[in-house]
Amino acid sequence: VILERVQLLAKENDLLFPLNFGAKGSAQIGGAISTNAGGLRVFRFGMTRSLVLGLEVVLMDGTILSSLKKIIKDNSAYDLKQIFIGSEGTLGVVTKAVLKLSEAPRSRNSAFVGINGFQNVVQFLKFTDKELAGTLSGYELIWNETFQKMTTPPSLSKAPLSYDYEYYVLIESLGSDQAKDHVALENLLEGALGESIIEDAVLAHTDSDLDWFWKIREDVHVIVSQCAFDQHFDISVPIPLIGKMIADATKKLKEVDGVTDVYPFGHIADGNIHFVIGKENDSVELKNKINDIVYGPLMAIGGSVSAEHGIGLHKKDYLSLCRTPEEIAVMKSLKKAFDPKSLLNPGKVIEINL
Amino acid sequence: VILERVQLLAKENDLLFPLNFGAKGSAQIGGAISTNAGGLRVFRFGMTRSLVLGLEVVLMDGTILSSLKKIIKDNSAYDLKQIFIGSEGTLGVVTKAVLKLSEAPRSRNSAFVGINGFQNVVQFLKFTDKELAGTLSGYELIWNETFQKMTTPPSLSKAPLSYDYEYYVLIESLGSDQAKDHVALENLLEGALGESIIEDAVLAHTDSDLDWFWKIREDVHVIVSQCAFDQHFDISVPIPLIGKMIADATKKLKEVDGVTDVYPFGHIADGNIHFVIGKENDSVELKNKINDIVYGPLMAIGGSVSAEHGIGLHKKDYLSLCRTPEEIAVMKSLKKAFDPKSLLNPGKVIEINL
Repeated sequence: VILERVQLLAKENDLLFPLNFGAKGSAQIGGAISTNAGGLRVFRFGMTRSLVLGLEVVLMDGTILSSLKKIIKDNSAYDLKQIFIGSEGTLGVVTKAVLKLSEAPRSRNSAFVGINGFQNVVQFLKFTDKELAGTLSGYELIWNETFQKMTTPPSLSKAPLSYDYEYYVLIESLGSDQAKDHVALENLLEGALGESIIEDAVLAHTDSDLDWFWKIREDVHVIVSQCAFDQHFDISVPIPLIGKMIADATKKLKEVDGVTDVYPFGHIADGNIHFVIGKENDSVELKNKINDIVYGPLMAIGGSVSAEHGIGLHKKDYLSLCRTPEEIAVMKSLKKAFDPKSLLNPGKVIEINL
Repeated sequence: VILERVQLLAKENDLLFPLNFGAKGSAQIGGAISTNAGGLRVFRFGMTRSLVLGLEVVLMDGTILSSLKKIIKDNSAYDLKQIFIGSEGTLGVVTKAVLKLSEAPRSRNSAFVGINGFQNVVQFLKFTDKELAGTLSGYELIWNETFQKMTTPPSLSKAPLSYDYEYYVLIESLGSDQAKDHVALENLLEGALGESIIEDAVLAHTDSDLDWFWKIREDVHVIVSQCAFDQHFDISVPIPLIGKMIADATKKLKEVDGVTDVYPFGHIADGNIHFVIGKENDSVELKNKINDIVYGPLMAIGGSVSAEHGIGLHKKDYLSLCRTPEEIAVMKSLKKAFDPKSLLNPGKVIEINL
């Protein structure tokens, strides 16, 4: 089943399946589970791992490991499904799942906010989280250059704020009363302006405003399409360190011969930054140079080469930057135990000696 | 570190560590992680599994498996910590952890509600979840007889509602504005009364009301102390089936020679029911008879013999009622792989041939 179909089926029953990301129109739910997909609402609802109650997995030896119970809590010995969620199909194949749905929210409000200084981005996150207590569902950060690119032609979206700020935050609250929650968000923004945490803000007043705001953030393709070649990242960094880490990396990347553009953005409440880097050619040398700049600092600051996209093929060589030799050794024993001939999604994530 | 100390340290820093249960004054945080402890706020914040960002585990061969990163999202290959969380110390020993804290809520409101008919208990849960959108943090159910026992001497707590109703629900909301959230809860209760979902309700107006209400629910000892011998349960059942399952089991239990009392209560929003069963003697025969009545129906309705307390020694014989032979076989291979001589918490959870 395609994720978007699950979302629609939930909606038709006045429920919400909160998992939501750009590729929702093509991503299979089994794939989302295998990769522990994240996306735009992780801050409130968690990764896919948190949304799976039961799982059926087929193992390499033909065993059907089936646990499709519709219960929320189950501490009856080892929680085996956790092993397969996020293992990218290398330990078993997900064939069925019981998903956790939520009550459909009755209100949805969003605002675009202009902020200077990364410490204010963090401050505003804490401020918003506290004020919206439980209803904050999205906190997306877009760096100035990325925001400009996302809101000038060929993008079809206009900019809802001037280009005067270092950072643009798109927030979403899902609540129970459209009018009240709208006022609450308005008051919150006035409070943050009053305390000089933020510089400017614009609220979505209509559904078409909501579409407009979220289209800006979701249409990453408009950036990619303007780069001759492009390279993407999905790193995870402790939130307070993001500002400096990205500023440093951007500066270094721009000095590299062949790099034309650097566009950071991300799910900042989860510490997850995506990068689109435009480049003149597709050479391995340039690719590795860019990888080294972005992945280089991660070990020292306790980050990860993949927050949500997984390791697959491309990040395999960089796994040791965020996993210890002991961790990788245990991963290899797991792989060996579940797939001794390495036939499941071969060559991905982790390699074992046959 | 004791859980209560973690809660206090978080509070001193204007933060919240949401894990909360009766034994918070004696439970070690490492134990809570090893058992994937649940408790009173799972509905909103999840089990312990959701509150652990990083973990250090010592394996049987002396390997220190250390992943103490302070990041929320990390899909860099297999999420090994998931294997150890909830494995009750049988696969490795948890020695350090990075915990996920939340912003401290600015408001806390609670109400006791009287309800007739289990379908109304479910209806009121959905109603409350929708109305309180994201701020509902607790939804505890107490059956009539249990409520009476919890609010008559030797209990020091008075009953906040008359004994006329089948079910008593204690709800908690954690929000951002004490006055506004109080009014919101008041309106919600009026709405539910108007729609005849609930029969009666009383709001906590002061901090001492809050203490009063929660003491009733948390003081399970007052029940236990009045039984000559007692037997406890921690089952998980799909929410819509709880009413009938508990009614049937209670009826059967009361017909058993030697059973004196049956007191069900639980974290109903998570499908988790606890039972305290009073009995005249401590015989194995009586114990097994009681176990058979409570655990018997679980397989057919897709329940679990342990929602949050784990398997340990006492539930080992009943594991096959909620796990398939294939699941148990895979659990044994895991145990064999991580602890081939069965030296870690020996005899608990799962047994392997040496």
